[in-house]
Amino acid sequence: MTVIQTPADWPTDWDPDSLVRRYDEVRAHTETLAAPLSPEDQTVQSMPDVSPTKWHRAHVTWFFETFLLADHEAGFAPFQDQYWFLFNSYYETLGPRFSRADRGLITRPGVHEVGDYRANVDDRVRDLLASLDGGTLDKLGPTIELGFHHEQQHQELLLMDIKHVLSRNPLQPVYAGAPPAPSTPDELGWVEVEGGLVEIGHDAVTQGPQGFCFDNELPRHRQWLEPYRLADRLVTNGEWLEFVADGGYRRHELWLSDGWARVNGEGWDSPLYWTERDGTWLEHTLHGTWPLDLGAPVCHVSFYEAEAFATWAGKRLPSEGEWEHAVETTVSTSSTGASVVEPVETPALHPRAAGPATGGLRQVHGECWEWTSSAYHPYPGFHAPAGAIGEYNGKFMSNQMVLRGGCALTSPGHARTTYRNFFPHSARWAVSGVRLADGGAPRLGGRR
Amino acid sequence: MTVIQTPADWPTDWDPDSLVRRYDEVRAHTETLAAPLSPEDQTVQSMPDVSPTKWHRAHVTWFFETFLLADHEAGFAPFQDQYWFLFNSYYETLGPRFSRADRGLITRPGVHEVGDYRANVDDRVRDLLASLDGGTLDKLGPTIELGFHHEQQHQELLLMDIKHVLSRNPLQPVYAGAPPAPSTPDELGWVEVEGGLVEIGHDAVTQGPQGFCFDNELPRHRQWLEPYRLADRLVTNGEWLEFVADGGYRRHELWLSDGWARVNGEGWDSPLYWTERDGTWLEHTLHGTWPLDLGAPVCHVSFYEAEAFATWAGKRLPSEGEWEHAVETTVSTSSTGASVVEPVETPALHPRAAGPATGGLRQVHGECWEWTSSAYHPYPGFHAPAGAIGEYNGKFMSNQMVLRGGCALTSPGHARTTYRNFFPHSARWAVSGVRLADGGAPRLGGRR
Amino acid sequence: MTVIQTPADWPTDWDPDSLVRRYDEVRAHTETLAAPLSPEDQTVQSMPDVSPTKWHRAHVTWFFETFLLADHEAGFAPFQDQYWFLFNSYYETLGPRFSRADRGLITRPGVHEVGDYRANVDDRVRDLLASLDGGTLDKLGPTIELGFHHEQQHQELLLMDIKHVLSRNPLQPVYAGAPPAPSTPDELGWVEVEGGLVEIGHDAVTQGPQGFCFDNELPRHRQWLEPYRLADRLVTNGEWLEFVADGGYRRHELWLSDGWARVNGEGWDSPLYWTERDGTWLEHTLHGTWPLDLGAPVCHVSFYEAEAFATWAGKRLPSEGEWEHAVETTVSTSSTGASVVEPVETPALHPRAAGPATGGLRQVHGECWEWTSSAYHPYPGFHAPAGAIGEYNGKFMSNQMVLRGGCALTSPGHARTTYRNFFPHSARWAVSGVRLADGGAPRLGGRR
Amino acid sequence: MTVIQTPADWPTDWDPDSLVRRYDEVRAHTETLAAPLSPEDQTVQSMPDVSPTKWHRAHVTWFFETFLLADHEAGFAPFQDQYWFLFNSYYETLGPRFSRADRGLITRPGVHEVGDYRANVDDRVRDLLASLDGGTLDKLGPTIELGFHHEQQHQELLLMDIKHVLSRNPLQPVYAGAPPAPSTPDELGWVEVEGGLVEIGHDAVTQGPQGFCFDNELPRHRQWLEPYRLADRLVTNGEWLEFVADGGYRRHELWLSDGWARVNGEGWDSPLYWTERDGTWLEHTLHGTWPLDLGAPVCHVSFYEAEAFATWAGKRLPSEGEWEHAVETTVSTSSTGASVVEPVETPALHPRAAGPATGGLRQVHGECWEWTSSAYHPYPGFHAPAGAIGEYNGKFMSNQMVLRGGCALTSPGHARTTYRNFFPHSARWAVSGVRLADGGAPRLGGRR
Ligand SMILES: [Fe+3]
Ligand SMILES: [Fe+3]
Ligand SMILES: [Fe+3]
Ligand SMILES: [Fe+3]
Repeated sequence: MTVIQTPADWPTDWDPDSLVRRYDEVRAHTETLAAPLSPEDQTVQSMPDVSPTKWHRAHVTWFFETFLLADHEAGFAPFQDQYWFLFNSYYETLGPRFSRADRGLITRPGVHEVGDYRANVDDRVRDLLASLDGGTLDKLGPTIELGFHHEQQHQELLLMDIKHVLSRNPLQPVYAGAPPAPSTPDELGWVEVEGGLVEIGHDAVTQGPQGFCFDNELPRHRQWLEPYRLADRLVTNGEWLEFVADGGYRRHELWLSDGWARVNGEGWDSPLYWTERDGTWLEHTLHGTWPLDLGAPVCHVSFYEAEAFATWAGKRLPSEGEWEHAVETTVSTSSTGASVVEPVETPALHPRAAGPATGGLRQVHGECWEWTSSAYHPYPGFHAPAGAIGEYNGKFMSNQMVLRGGCALTSPGHARTTYRNFFPHSARWAVSGVRLADGGAPRLGGRR
Repeated sequence: MTVIQTPADWPTDWDPDSLVRRYDEVRAHTETLAAPLSPEDQTVQSMPDVSPTKWHRAHVTWFFETFLLADHEAGFAPFQDQYWFLFNSYYETLGPRFSRADRGLITRPGVHEVGDYRANVDDRVRDLLASLDGGTLDKLGPTIELGFHHEQQHQELLLMDIKHVLSRNPLQPVYAGAPPAPSTPDELGWVEVEGGLVEIGHDAVTQGPQGFCFDNELPRHRQWLEPYRLADRLVTNGEWLEFVADGGYRRHELWLSDGWARVNGEGWDSPLYWTERDGTWLEHTLHGTWPLDLGAPVCHVSFYEAEAFATWAGKRLPSEGEWEHAVETTVSTSSTGASVVEPVETPALHPRAAGPATGGLRQVHGECWEWTSSAYHPYPGFHAPAGAIGEYNGKFMSNQMVLRGGCALTSPGHARTTYRNFFPHSARWAVSGVRLADGGAPRLGGRR
Repeated sequence: MTVIQTPADWPTDWDPDSLVRRYDEVRAHTETLAAPLSPEDQTVQSMPDVSPTKWHRAHVTWFFETFLLADHEAGFAPFQDQYWFLFNSYYETLGPRFSRADRGLITRPGVHEVGDYRANVDDRVRDLLASLDGGTLDKLGPTIELGFHHEQQHQELLLMDIKHVLSRNPLQPVYAGAPPAPSTPDELGWVEVEGGLVEIGHDAVTQGPQGFCFDNELPRHRQWLEPYRLADRLVTNGEWLEFVADGGYRRHELWLSDGWARVNGEGWDSPLYWTERDGTWLEHTLHGTWPLDLGAPVCHVSFYEAEAFATWAGKRLPSEGEWEHAVETTVSTSSTGASVVEPVETPALHPRAAGPATGGLRQVHGECWEWTSSAYHPYPGFHAPAGAIGEYNGKFMSNQMVLRGGCALTSPGHARTTYRNFFPHSARWAVSGVRLADGGAPRLGGRR
Repeated sequence: MTVIQTPADWPTDWDPDSLVRRYDEVRAHTETLAAPLSPEDQTVQSMPDVSPTKWHRAHVTWFFETFLLADHEAGFAPFQDQYWFLFNSYYETLGPRFSRADRGLITRPGVHEVGDYRANVDDRVRDLLASLDGGTLDKLGPTIELGFHHEQQHQELLLMDIKHVLSRNPLQPVYAGAPPAPSTPDELGWVEVEGGLVEIGHDAVTQGPQGFCFDNELPRHRQWLEPYRLADRLVTNGEWLEFVADGGYRRHELWLSDGWARVNGEGWDSPLYWTERDGTWLEHTLHGTWPLDLGAPVCHVSFYEAEAFATWAGKRLPSEGEWEHAVETTVSTSSTGASVVEPVETPALHPRAAGPATGGLRQVHGECWEWTSSAYHPYPGFHAPAGAIGEYNGKFMSNQMVLRGGCALTSPGHARTTYRNFFPHSARWAVSGVRLADGGAPRLGGRR
C-alpha cells in the first residue's frame, strides 16, 4: 500500500550485507544512547513536544515494521495490534493514533517490553534483507535507507528530549560524563562570498552514491544571491552575556512583535537552560549543571532571540541559500563528494568552542543548528512522494524556520550540507545557535 | 516548630511496642500495594489530581520525617535536602514546594531511591519510638497516630490514582487478580429514622480509646433532623443503566446548571470508567476491563451525576447528618464502640454487590464512598490546630461536597462512622457511589 | 405550556388596577436607571458575567412576553422571532439561546429598537390585564408578581453591570451625581441571640398578603441554633485598610486554599474597585472615582476575602439561619409583617456609613449584601415548580454561597428578611460586604 | 523625537494646497464609511483582531496628532491626555497603551466625542499645513503622505471589521445597498511568463512622483524566476463548491499539518461567511445574507484553505515575486507609471465576477487579496526607519504570509503593484481569495 517513490537520481546499488551491517549499527546506537537511562527516565514526557525515550525506541521500530515489513514480509502480522496505534507519530494515512501530548501517560509497554519489540523486528528485518534479490532490493532500498536516517533523527530527538526532561528536576541529574574544560573565546572572522546565480539543493550526481537526502532537499534549483559575508564561527556564550547585560531581553526595539510577546509572556531573560544563582550563570547540560563556558557557542535560543541578537549586533541572519552556497564553495575541498563535511565518531553531547581560524567557516556541523532567515517552505518544484511516506516532511511546511548544519547531539554521518532542519520560531529545546551574516543586497542602513 | 495540639478528649496511653508494631504494619501495607507496579507505572501522573505511586510512597515518608523526626530526633538532618521540597504536598507553612501538576515529570529519585528513603526513615522512626519515655510519648502520640492515618489515606489514593493511570492505556492493563463472578441484584429496602435533635461528630468518650479522628470530625454538636428514610443499599450498575437508557445524560431538567455544563463540555454519557463496545458496556477496574456487573454498586460518578440520578428516581441524596445518625443508630449494635463498623481484612479493590437484607443499612463501609447533599464546611465550633498541621483539612473547606462511608480501596481499619471525605462536585476518579434518601421536612412535591 | 404553580399559601387576591399601576412603576423604574447611559454604554459586556444594559431592558420584557403573553394573549405572536432566541437568559426548556458570553457583540437591536420592544409589550400586557376576570387573575397572579420581582432583580444587575463596564475605562466615567460627604466611623456593637430550635424561611401566613417570595425561600422549616452574637454594623473601609496594612493579602494562614489560589492567580491586594495612587486609596463608584470613605462599609469583596478577614479578626461569618433569625427577632418590631424591614425610596447607589447604634442590627438592608457561611443549597423539602419557570432558581444550587440583606443598588421594596441572594465564592462585582459573627457551638479556640 | 526618514528616492515636491485637499478627501471618506453605522455598531469588538469603528476613527486621528502635530505644532498639547493611551495601536516606543483585546469595552468617548476629536485635529492639521514653508514641507511631506495611506488602510479595516461584527448577529444585518445580480462564471485562462533575473519591489524612479510606498516594499532587488504561468482570473465560488463537494475539508492529504489542525479544531467546512441552510449555500456580505453567487470569486479563505485548494486542483499558489513580475510585465501597459493599475472610484464592498478575458491577468486589484506562497519577510537590504514609525511594518515580519493585489473594500487609489499585504496563515476575516499558478522550476510530479 505504501510505496516509496525512487527519485530518478537516487543510488540504486544496495548490497544486502552492507545493509544488514548498517541496520545493526544504527539500531545498536539507539540502544547505546538509551542505556544510561532508568525505566523512570525513559517513561516521562515533560512537554507535548517531547517524547519519552522508550516511545522513541518503539516508534523507530514501528517505522521499519510499518513501512518495510507490512508490505514485504510474507504472512506479515503486527507484533502487537495496539502498538500500531501507540507508536504512529503523525501519519494520518495510517489511521487513528494515540494523542501526542499523552505519550507520557503510557506506562506499558515498559522498557523491557519495548526491548522485546525491538528484538523481534530486528530479527524479521534481517530475515527479510537476507531473502531479497536484486530487483526487490532496488525497490526497497530507498525505504530501508530512509529508515536508517529516520532512526538517526530520533537519536538526536531522544537526547534533546531527555535533556528537557532532566532539566525539570531540581536534583540536577546527569545523563553522562563530565563537562569539557572551559575554553578561551576565539576571534571572530568573516568569510566573503561572491554569490550570483547559484544552485541550491541536493545533487545526487555530484554527491556520489552515498548521496541520500530527504525529499525536502529536492529539487536542486537556481537562486540569485547578491555578494555577502558570513561569520566564520558561531556566537559564543560570552557574546550572548554582553547582549543580556546590555538589556537585550528588555529592549522592545530589538525584537519582532511575536518575539517580544514571548519575552514578556514567558518571562524569557536568557537562553532556555541558563539560570543565575548568586551572580553566577549556570547552564544545564547532559553532563549536569555547570558554570557557563564563555567560549562555547550559545545554544537553546529561539529564532526570535537569534534575530534580536543579530539586530543588536548590527548584523543579520543568513538565508538558507547563503548558508548552503557558502559551505559548498568555501569549506575544506578535501571532503568534496561526501555528504558529511566534518564527520564525527560519537556525538559530543554539548557544543564546543571553535578551534583556530581556518580561513573558511568553522563549526559547520557538530556544534549547533544555525537559525536562518528562511521560512521552511517547499523548494520550487518540490513534490512529496505518494502514500503515507509523503507525510514525512511536506505537510510541516508552514510556520517554521529552517536551521542548517547539525549539532553536538546529531548522530555521526547524519549531517549534510543540503540538510534542512526546521522548528517553530519560538522553539528552544533543540541545540540551536547563531551564525551572523552581513552584506547582501545594497543596504540603505542598519535595520533600526 | 510544628506542634500537634492534643484535643482534650484524645486517648493518651500510647505504648511504644504497639506503636512500632502498628508503624511497621502500616508502612508494609503501602509497599504491598505498590509491589505489582513497575518503575514505569510508579512514575506517571495522568492528570493534575493524580500523583505517581512513588510520590505517594515518598510523601508519606516525608510526613513522618517532617512532623515527627524534624522536631524530635536528636541532631536531625533531612535525608536529602531537595526531598523536603519535592515531597511537600500542600503545606504553605513549610516553605516553597514543587508544582503539584508536575509530579509526573520527576524521574529521579526512582523507585529504588524512594525505597532507600523509606528504609532510612523507618530505621530512624523506630529508634525514636524506642527511646521515648512516657511523657514524650503522650506529647508525640497524636502526631504518630496521625501519621498512621495519613499513610492509610494515601494507600487509598495510591490505588485510585494508579487506576486512573492504567485507564488511559489502550492495552487495558491489569493491576491485580481476576474479577469476582457477576452478582444478582438485590431488592432495595428502606430504613426509617425518627430524627429530632441529634448529635453529630466524633465523640471520643463513647467511641473508646482507639477513637482517633481527624480535626474535621470535631466538635460533636447538635443538629435538628426531621424524620427521614434511607435506602438500605447502594444504587447498582443495573439501575444506572436504566437511567442511561432513559436519556439521563441528555435531559437538562434532571441536572444542576453546573452539572449540565459538565455533561456537555466533557461529553459525559456514563460513569467515568464505562465504555460501550458493540452494544456491550465494559468497565475498567483494577482487575482489568470486563463486562459491567449489573448487581454491583455503581461507582466513579460525580456529585452532579448522583444528584441527577436521585432527581430522576424521584428521591434525593442524604445530608451527612442524616447519614451519620442513621448509621450510628441503626447499624449492627454488636459493633458499637468500634470506629469501624464492618472491618475488612484487605481492600476488595472493587465494590461488591450487597448481601441479603438485614433490616439495617447495608454496604456502609468497604464498597463506595457515598455522596451527600452537604457542603464540606467546618462544623460549628471547628478549629484547626496551630502550625503547619493546621493546613491538613481546614483550608479545603470550600467548593467541595462531603462523602461518607468508605470504599473498596480504603485500607482495613481506616473507615469510621464520623469520617468526612470530600471531593469537588465534578470529581469522578474516587470510588464514589450513591445511596438514596427520602422524606425529611414535609415536602410539597417532587423537585420536578 | 409553561404554567406557574401557585404555592398553597400564596396570596390570591390580585386587583387589576393595582397590578397595572405596579407594572407601570416597575417598568418605568428600569427606564429611569438606563436614562443616563448612552447607546455605547448600553451595548458593552465587560466580562461574561456582565450583561449589556440594553440586554437587561430587553430580557425583562422577553420575560413578560414569554411567561405571560405567550400562554395567555389571544392570537399571540412574538414581537420579533429572533428576540426569543437573543433574550432568553438561561431557560433550557425554551429551546436554544444566544451565547451568554457574546451578548456584547449584538449591536442590533439598538437602544431605540429595544425601546420599541418595551413599548409594544407594555401595551399588550396592559390590554391583557384589563381583560382578565377574577378566576384568571388568580391563576396568572403569581406569574405577574414574579415578573415584577424579576425586573427588580435586573434593575440591580443593570447597575452592578454598568458599574463594572465603566470601571474598565481609564477616563473614570461617572454614572450619576456626586458622592456623599466622608463619614465618621461608628463604634461596633454586638447583638446577642439565644437560638434554640428556630424556624427559617418564608412564612406567607405571618408575613401577610404582600408576602411574595422566590421558591428558594421555601419551605419554612426548623433548624437548631446554639447561642451566638452578631456585629450590629458592617465592616468598614477603615477596618479593611487595617487588614490590608497587616499583610492580610499576603498571609496564607488566613485563607482557604481556593481563596489563596485566587489571591495569587489574580493578584488581589484589595477589594475589586480600590486602587492606590501615590499613597492614596481611591474607589471607583457610580459617582466616579474618589478617595476611600473610611466610615462607609467595605464592598465588592469575595467570599474568600470576607472569610479571611473574619479569621484575621478572630471572628467568623454568620450562617444564613443565624442571620435570618437575628433579623426576625431583633430588628425594629414596628415593621413586623412587612417583607421589607427598612424601606427606601430610591437606591442610594453606594453604601453609606451606619447611623448611631440602636441596640439592634444596623445596615440590614440597603447597603451591602452580606456573605454568610452557608452554601446555597435547597432548603429541606424544597421543590422547583414544573416547566421552564422551575429553572429560575433551583438549578443554580451548587458552588455558590448565600448572601443576605440587600444593598445600595437594590430596588425599593425588593429586599426581604428571608431573601436568599447567591454568588460564587470568588465573585466581587456584586455590592457584597461583611458582618462578623461570634459564639455559637462551644468553641475550643480560634480557627488558627 | 519621532522623525520620519526620507528615503533617498522619495518625491519631495509637496504642495500645501493639494495636501490640504487630499487631507480633506481622505478624512471625509472615513466618515462616509462610518455614516451608516449606529453608535452601538461603532462600539463593538467581535474578536481581538477586530477593532470598533469608532476606535478606527479615533486612531487614525491620533496618528496625525502623534506623528505630525506633536512634533511640529507650536505649543502642542494633546486633545485629551488619555486618548494618547487609548488610541495608540501598537507603538511600544510611545509608552504604555490600552489592551488591544479590550477596545470594545470602552464606551466613552462615544461616537460624538470621537467626532469632536476628529474635528479638532482636522482644524489644527489644516492650520499647520497652511503655515509651512518649502523646506519644512519637504521634511514633513513623507509623514503627511504616510498619514493618508495609513488612514486608507484603516478604511479597509473598518469595513472588514464591521463585516465581522455584523456576521455575529442572528438578525442578519445589512451595512449597505443590495447585492449585484448573480453572474455567469467565465472561462479560466493562463498567462505565460518567461521569468529570468527580474526585479522586485518599489521603484520610485519609474513609478513617478506619486510613487508612495510603505517601507516593506523596499528596496527593489533582483530575484531569479523560472518560467511559470498564472491563472488569468480568481478561483470562483462555483469552483470552491466543487472542492467542498469533493470532500475538500475532509481529506487530510490535501492539507498542511497546521491547516488540518485548524479544520478539525475549529470545524471549518467552508469559507468564513458561508452557511448552508436546507441545501442552499448562503453568504454573509455587507449587503446582507444572500445565496452564493457562483461566478463571483471565493473570498474569506485562509492561507491553509487556499493551499489545500491548489493542491486539490493539481496547481500551486504563486510566489509574491511571480505575482508582481507578472502584473508589472503583462497588465495594461497604458497604466504604466501609475501606482494603481485599475483605479476604482468607490469600493465595491463585495468582489465581483471577472469580465471577459483580456489576454492578461484579470481581477488584479479591487476584488480579493490573493494569497501567495511567500512568507512575509524583509526584502534583502530592508531597513525600518528610526523612531516609533519604524514599528509600522518591520516588527510584524514573522509567522505571516504575503497577499497581493487589493480587494473590494480597498479605498480608491490605495492599491499598488508592489503593495505587500500580510496576514497569519489562519486569518479569514480579510477579503482574501486565490489565484492559481503553475510551472516554475522543473517539477518531478504533482505534490501528492
Ligand atoms: Fe518519526
Ligand atoms: Fe498527604
Ligand atoms: Fe432574568
Ligand atoms: Fe494604524
